[in-house]
Amino acid sequence: MIIFVYINYFFFKLILVRMLDKNSAIGVFDSGIGGLSVLKQFIRFLPSENYIYLGDTARVPYGNKSKQIVEAYAKESAEFLISKGVKIIIIACNTVSALALDSIRSISNDIDVIGMIDPAAEASLRASRNGKIGIIGTRATIGSNAYINQINNISSENSNIKVFSKACPMFVPIVEEGMIRHDATKLIAEEYLSEFRNHKIDTLVLGCTHYPLLSHLINEVLPNVTLIDSGEHAAVYALRVLAEKRLLIEPNLQFIEKPKIDFYVTDSATNFYEQAHNFLGFKIDKPQIIKLGKD
Amino acid sequence: MIIFVYINYFFFKLILVRMLDKNSAIGVFDSGIGGLSVLKQFIRFLPSENYIYLGDTARVPYGNKSKQIVEAYAKESAEFLISKGVKIIIIACNTVSALALDSIRSISNDIDVIGMIDPAAEASLRASRNGKIGIIGTRATIGSNAYINQINNISSENSNIKVFSKACPMFVPIVEEGMIRHDATKLIAEEYLSEFRNHKIDTLVLGCTHYPLLSHLINEVLPNVTLIDSGEHAAVYALRVLAEKRLLIEPNLQFIEKPKIDFYVTDSATNFYEQAHNFLGFKIDKPQIIKLGKD
Repeated sequence: MIIFVYINYFFFKLILVRMLDKNSAIGVFDSGIGGLSVLKQFIRFLPSENYIYLGDTARVPYGNKSKQIVEAYAKESAEFLISKGVKIIIIACNTVSALALDSIRSISNDIDVIGMIDPAAEASLRASRNGKIGIIGTRATIGSNAYINQINNISSENSNIKVFSKACPMFVPIVEEGMIRHDATKLIAEEYLSEFRNHKIDTLVLGCTHYPLLSHLINEVLPNVTLIDSGEHAAVYALRVLAEKRLLIEPNLQFIEKPKIDFYVTDSATNFYEQAHNFLGFKIDKPQIIKLGKD
Repeated sequence: MIIFVYINYFFFKLILVRMLDKNSAIGVFDSGIGGLSVLKQFIRFLPSENYIYLGDTARVPYGNKSKQIVEAYAKESAEFLISKGVKIIIIACNTVSALALDSIRSISNDIDVIGMIDPAAEASLRASRNGKIGIIGTRATIGSNAYINQINNISSENSNIKVFSKACPMFVPIVEEGMIRHDATKLIAEEYLSEFRNHKIDTLVLGCTHYPLLSHLINEVLPNVTLIDSGEHAAVYALRVLAEKRLLIEPNLQFIEKPKIDFYVTDSATNFYEQAHNFLGFKIDKPQIIKLGKD
C-alpha cells in the first residue's frame, strides 16, 4: 500500500512537471541593458538553451523609482514573458529583485522566479573568510536593505558577520556612456570604494548588473577582494532549479556561433542594439519593439 | 498498460538512484595539490556538500609519466574514493583526465566520473567568437591531443575553428615554488604565450589545474583573451549531473566558516598542508596519510 501511494505520488509529480516544457525559453527581463551581463552568465553555463530577453527601455531606469511603480512595471514585464510560455523567469536587475520579487512570484503560478539578491547574498557568505562583506548597488537597492536583510537572515547565528553597503549611482551612467576606461572613472571608483579598505572587507557584492563591466577597475581599487557577480550566481542557481525539475535542454554538442536569443524592447532599439555588444561580446539580432502597459 | 509500464519504469529508476545517497561525499582526486583549484570551484557553487579530497603526493607528478602508469595510479585513487562511498568522482587533473578517464569509468559502475577535458573543451567553443582557441597544459596533456580531439569532435561541421596548443611545463613548478609574482615568471609566460598573439586567439583553455593561480599574469600577457578554468566548468557540469539525479544536498542556509572536506594524501603532508592555503584561500584540517597500491 505504501509502495502504491509512493508510485502515485511520483506519477502525480510527473504530470505537474510535464505542464512546463523543457524546450521553452528561459525568460530574462530588466529595465534596460544591465540584465545583459546576467544573460551572458547564463549563456556561459547553459549555452544550449533558448532565451527571451526583455528590456523595458521605454521606462528605464528603475533605480530611483518608487516600490509601487517598480512593482507595476515589473509585473507587466513578467506577464509578457509568461505569455511567451517561458519555463522560468529571471529578474535580471537587482533593484527589481529587491523591490518586486514577491509581487512577481504572486502572478507566476508554477513558473519559478529567480532574483539577483538571494544567490549573491549566499555566495558572499561562502566566499568571505573574515566575515566582512561589502555591498554596492543603486540607491534603490541599497536603500531597500535587501542584501543586508538576506545576509543577516542566513547568518543569524553568527555575530562575526559585518556588512557594509554603499550606493554608487554614477556607475550605471559611466557604463552606459562607455566611460569604463576614462581617468575620471578611476577617481569616482576611488571615492566610492575607499571606505571599504578601512572596513577590511574581503568580499564585495556587485549588486547591480552594470557593475561586472567595471570589475577590472574595482579590483584595482580593492585588490585581494573577491567580487561576487550576482548574475553568475543566479545562473548557477537557476541551472540547479531547472536540472532538478528535469527542465534543461540536453546539451547540444554542435558548435553554435550565436546563442538562440529573442530580444524585445519597449522603445526604439538603436542604443540597446549598439550597447548589447559591450555587454555580451557578440553582435545581436535586431530587437523587436513591443508595448507594455497603458503607455 | 502503457501507464503501468511507465510507472514501473520510474519506480525502477527510483530504486537504482536510491543506491547512491545524496548525503555521500563528492570525491575529488589529483596527483597532488593542483586539484585544490578544482575543489575551490566546487565549493564556490556547491558549498553545502561534503567533500573527500585525495592527493597522491607519494607519486606526484603524473605529468611526465606513461599512460599505463597514470592509468594504474588513477584507478587506485578512484578505488579508494569508491571504498569511501562517494556519490560522484571528479578527476581534478587534466593529465589523468586525458589519459585515464575511460579506465576509471570502467571500474566505477553507477557512479558518474567527471573529467576536466570535456566541460572545458565545450566551454571554450561557447566562449570563442572568432573560432581561434588556444590550449595550454602539461607535456602529457598537450601530447595526448585530448583537447584538440574533443574540440574537433564537437565542432566537426565547422571548419572555421582553429586550435593552437602549447605545453608550458615550467608553470607547475612556478606555482608550487610560490614564484607567481616573480619577474622571471613574467619572462617565462611571455615566452610560452606570445605565439598565441600571432594566432589571434580570443579564448585560452587553462588545461592544467595549477594554471588558474597564474590567471592574472596570463591576462597581462594576453589581454582581451577569455580564460577557461577547467575546474569551474567541471564544477557546473557536475552540479547539473547531480541535480538531475536528485543527488544534491539541500542548500544549508546556516553560515559555515569552513566547508566540510576530509583530506587524504599518500605522503607526509607538510608541504600539501601549507600549499593548500594558496589554492583554497583558507586553512585546511590536517590531511590523513593513507597507502595506495603496493608501494
